[in-house]
Amino acid sequence: MKILITGGGGMIGRKLVERLAREGTLNGQAIGQVTLQDVVEPATPAEAPFEVETRTSDLSDAGEADRLLEDKPDVIFHLAAVVSGEAETDFDKGYRVNLTGVMNLLEAARRAGNAPRIVFTSSIAAYGAPFPEPIPDDYILQPLTSYGTQKVCGELLLADYTRKGFVDGVGVRLPSICIRPGKPNKAASSFFSGILREPLAGVEAICPVDDTVRHWVASPRAATGFLIHAATIDSDAIGPRRTLAMPGLCVSIREMLDSLRRIAGDTVADRVTFVPDDFIRSIVSGWPENFAPERALALGFTPDPDFDSIIRSHIDEELGGRVAD
Amino acid sequence: MKILITGGGGMIGRKLVERLAREGTLNGQAIGQVTLQDVVEPATPAEAPFEVETRTSDLSDAGEADRLLEDKPDVIFHLAAVVSGEAETDFDKGYRVNLTGVMNLLEAARRAGNAPRIVFTSSIAAYGAPFPEPIPDDYILQPLTSYGTQKVCGELLLADYTRKGFVDGVGVRLPSICIRPGKPNKAASSFFSGILREPLAGVEAICPVDDTVRHWVASPRAATGFLIHAATIDSDAIGPRRTLAMPGLCVSIREMLDSLRRIAGDTVADRVTFVPDDFIRSIVSGWPENFAPERALALGFTPDPDFDSIIRSHIDEELGGRVAD
Repeated sequence: MKILITGGGGMIGRKLVERLAREGTLNGQAIGQVTLQDVVEPATPAEAPFEVETRTSDLSDAGEADRLLEDKPDVIFHLAAVVSGEAETDFDKGYRVNLTGVMNLLEAARRAGNAPRIVFTSSIAAYGAPFPEPIPDDYILQPLTSYGTQKVCGELLLADYTRKGFVDGVGVRLPSICIRPGKPNKAASSFFSGILREPLAGVEAICPVDDTVRHWVASPRAATGFLIHAATIDSDAIGPRRTLAMPGLCVSIREMLDSLRRIAGDTVADRVTFVPDDFIRSIVSGWPENFAPERALALGFTPDPDFDSIIRSHIDEELGGRVAD
Repeated sequence: MKILITGGGGMIGRKLVERLAREGTLNGQAIGQVTLQDVVEPATPAEAPFEVETRTSDLSDAGEADRLLEDKPDVIFHLAAVVSGEAETDFDKGYRVNLTGVMNLLEAARRAGNAPRIVFTSSIAAYGAPFPEPIPDDYILQPLTSYGTQKVCGELLLADYTRKGFVDGVGVRLPSICIRPGKPNKAASSFFSGILREPLAGVEAICPVDDTVRHWVASPRAATGFLIHAATIDSDAIGPRRTLAMPGLCVSIREMLDSLRRIAGDTVADRVTFVPDDFIRSIVSGWPENFAPERALALGFTPDPDFDSIIRSHIDEELGGRVAD
């Protein structure tokens, strides 16, 4: 089995290829080759029981998708994207990468002719306020950002190319990833991870919204699980609506910080200061907070058990089990 | 005021420009110029109190949208489209005209810099089964055809370009137009008009579905009214969800034919024969039948009063008031 991961240099790409390297198989088949593509040279796993190729390129460049699909990968994880904040400030770049990139990939897959499983990463940014409580699977997708618009267009194209038999697409609308390791990124949701990650690493953090704000989150571990499950799920079981809202956890800032205090202690939790930011607040107020992801649960997608386990998995995976006192 | 009508050679374009010619104004402003663009030379109204220009071109050709918007029209009616049946059989043409065409138009409007009102025609093909009864305004758009996919992508792009201030877009999800004058077209819904239009013109007609099948329809007169209203409505009243489900009538084939018999008599109504067609039936079974278009009604969009009036307006406008006995 050959696998292509676009945006393979990003955080989720790295977690995904590390998990594939540990497991060595996907859907019961041995993995022979994984290609990691990204605009910057992607890191490769230290040990892998399969060949790992890297390709540094821009998927929105003419012909690049065709070159990537020359080897007819069986499974494509399409993770390449410009994040929400950057897509908002650089309109042209957002459309080029997040829409033209998807269109190029789908056309290349159509020309390759082997109807590969494409796992497409959409986002809760696909939704726009006002919302019912909780949001059902058949609620309208009316994004309030360019990023969300590009993601919904991608979902729709994926469904149509799948319906025509050109690809075998499964989309996952990921919750906000929390706790995202590494440095803050340009996503407006970055602080939801920052208020946990920084204190755990001994750094002060600012929360720009009230502690009553709720958010829909999943750990990197759960998100990687969603992608793997989406790659292996039976196509016919999904039906024509190819993108599914993933099961996250609905947690308030207060619940997150209570969990942090419970697990890491007062010294760590006291590193968070509230400094309201009206710009961030206005963006966040348009975001969905709580879903009833019945289709995904029925299809076997597995959420994090609770928020404590999200913090614990971050401490295990990113901090070597140690919190900065 | 300058107006551009893309797809101005089509049935709705012709009705629209004839109405504009009768009224001479739009939103209380005198119309100075109307440009009719289409891939075939558009007909012009016999008498118009404004300058009428025609342009025969393909909106999906590079640079064409920029040339059309050189004069900075104040209002653009975007009617140019490949219909549902043709978009299904010619995948590439459908995407080129129905998606690339819209993208080119929006980019040209952004470059023109005058944030024109763009009236975008979407369709009930934006929806896909299964459906609640009736379908509310916030029901998910999950089309089951390429045409529907292209229309929803167009809606989403229109909303995003409007949010950014590049255009002032208003989309209308048109019901099936019934009774569509002229010849049958390549839309799979063509028979809904054919079973009325042909008998009224003295021609036998075939109905390929059961008489219990319901459909969501609006007359050409009502549809033209929707477009005019969409061109004049206050932008702020609409909010960020820029495309509205239009108020049609939910009628069964039986109700249509009863109305035909009531208005035109037995000789006319007896010209319809039922010959089931499984291909058409399978397509139609995925279509929405009944909506609760509350937002459009609250914003002043006016539906046909009843199905009898739809038949009467066809007899008046297309048959000079006379039915073929």
